[in-house]
Amino acid sequence: MHLSELVTPALVVDQAALDGNLATMAAALPGARLRPHVKAHKCTSLAARQAATGHHGFTCATIRECEGLAAAGLGEDLLLANEVLDTRRIGALLEAGHRVTVCVDSAATIAAAVAGGVREVVVDVNVGLPRCGCAPEDAAGLAELARSLGLSVRGVQGYEGHVVGLESAVERTEKCKASMEILAAAHAAVGGELMSAGGTGTYVINTWASEIQAGSYVLMDTAYGRLGLPFRQAVYVLATVISTSAPALGAWSVADAGLKAFGMDHGLPEIAGSKVWYCSDEHIVFEPARHVGDRVLVAPAHVDPTIAYHERMHLADLASGEILETWPVDLRGW
Amino acid sequence: MHLSELVTPALVVDQAALDGNLATMAAALPGARLRPHVKAHKCTSLAARQAATGHHGFTCATIRECEGLAAAGLGEDLLLANEVLDTRRIGALLEAGHRVTVCVDSAATIAAAVAGGVREVVVDVNVGLPRCGCAPEDAAGLAELARSLGLSVRGVQGYEGHVVGLESAVERTEKCKASMEILAAAHAAVGGELMSAGGTGTYVINTWASEIQAGSYVLMDTAYGRLGLPFRQAVYVLATVISTSAPALGAWSVADAGLKAFGMDHGLPEIAGSKVWYCSDEHIVFEPARHVGDRVLVAPAHVDPTIAYHERMHLADLASGEILETWPVDLRGW
Repeated sequence: MHLSELVTPALVVDQAALDGNLATMAAALPGARLRPHVKAHKCTSLAARQAATGHHGFTCATIRECEGLAAAGLGEDLLLANEVLDTRRIGALLEAGHRVTVCVDSAATIAAAVAGGVREVVVDVNVGLPRCGCAPEDAAGLAELARSLGLSVRGVQGYEGHVVGLESAVERTEKCKASMEILAAAHAAVGGELMSAGGTGTYVINTWASEIQAGSYVLMDTAYGRLGLPFRQAVYVLATVISTSAPALGAWSVADAGLKAFGMDHGLPEIAGSKVWYCSDEHIVFEPARHVGDRVLVAPAHVDPTIAYHERMHLADLASGEILETWPVDLRGW
Repeated sequence: MHLSELVTPALVVDQAALDGNLATMAAALPGARLRPHVKAHKCTSLAARQAATGHHGFTCATIRECEGLAAAGLGEDLLLANEVLDTRRIGALLEAGHRVTVCVDSAATIAAAVAGGVREVVVDVNVGLPRCGCAPEDAAGLAELARSLGLSVRGVQGYEGHVVGLESAVERTEKCKASMEILAAAHAAVGGELMSAGGTGTYVINTWASEIQAGSYVLMDTAYGRLGLPFRQAVYVLATVISTSAPALGAWSVADAGLKAFGMDHGLPEIAGSKVWYCSDEHIVFEPARHVGDRVLVAPAHVDPTIAYHERMHLADLASGEILETWPVDLRGW
């Protein structure tokens, strides 16, 4: 099957770029040094490719992602890098023989873990991002509470999410260091083998963490593309030009991929050689005028919420247009 | 089943608000005066409610929406208010006995309609929004071309999408009039019974169109909520507070609904009585601090791309928390 036969809009993955990104990361952070975050791609077939390059533990943001990876035979060592209260679903995965470690950052989430049959946790520590994570000085007490209730505490997590997207590499490095010094102190107080942190923007400069949770590196987006990282844009939304303006009106094109095909929180997606004007529900409007029927590859500004709109992604040889494999985006929803 | 038993995030529809919105619209634009646009809700169960209040023709933005409505027995008179090239799928619906009228705005889309077995079209006219639609002076020629190739031309469409969201009612009215004068002239030149236009923001002031394509009115969002329309917010994302900051850090809460639960092009969603700081993939961060386990209703800024992230919506009595029905969001994808 050829790209020209796809119903559009459709997610297309550039095989050469994907393979390059996988190889670059496996060389930089081999084996367990990387715990790939599946929230970026939500696809067990792609996770299997990451496992094939040596990374057998995965990071998840939702229980559904844990369940899906486990069902796909990838549940050897999952870290749910998030607080959850619906812990019976995790308990069920453990009973089925999978390994899932859950984040806790409060007495309430520890109680929920115990009630749901969770066995292993990490203490989630706030390292500067105002989101989840306990105050650093509370980490040891929470670990003690968790252990007193029978949980195994594998260590700490602290996500420097306020740092990973900074365009200045110097600033990224300095702020990453500051965050990881906080996390290292908490780790010393908590104990355990894991100090889990990091993302695509800090994968190489975060030398403190025992493992890096990068996810976006494998498919990339235009925001991460501005950071000078050695990863190439590997995912696009293929769209078809359905309308082109009459010369009397101006010179623009409309293709059939819009707000339901792209996460928009990082701004507009991009088309090489074109200027994107705006998106509406099912349209992307850009200049110059193209021919009706032309196909364009649109690069998302933010990969994670883009993928989550799509049912499947097509692995393709972009040079020939041949579609090599089609993978369901099977970790969507909750 | 009760709202407290739902896995979050979950789409919840306020039955009282929904029924009110349906009744208000059916009174203002009875029967065929409204052709509800299903792109806003993507749900055949909700379309059936609209049909039950008298609106039997529907507007669609995608072929999948046409196929889904037809499969649900709602294919009596569908208008695909968009240009498409994959017209064999429309031809198949016609062969199965459904009625689908398609927009054309170029010789290329007319040729595609003929090739795919489409029988009825409307000429899509640009009335000021730089998107699809032919130049007004080209409408008659395109209608003539379509008829010469055996298509039945039912009239014109012209969407005043640059007008429907204007907060000033005076400006909305003046610009709607300007757009509809363009469309009326094209309609006079093209002929046919349909002059299809309008949206939730112009449903009552657009007195020129033969039918109004409003969709958002039924569920609403915070953007349309600012226009002073007689429709109430009827859809929310139910989220659970999973983390609350230590007093030493500040005073915020984190709930489990983020960039994969809300279309973000209109800005941040809102929580009554709270100040939303930001969203990340699976989190919404807001003040003040709440208790872990609290549930919050989050109102989307833009309904259409919000709904498209969710597998189902739950119709509920918000006063009692009882879930009355659960509807699949079955018109997603392409």
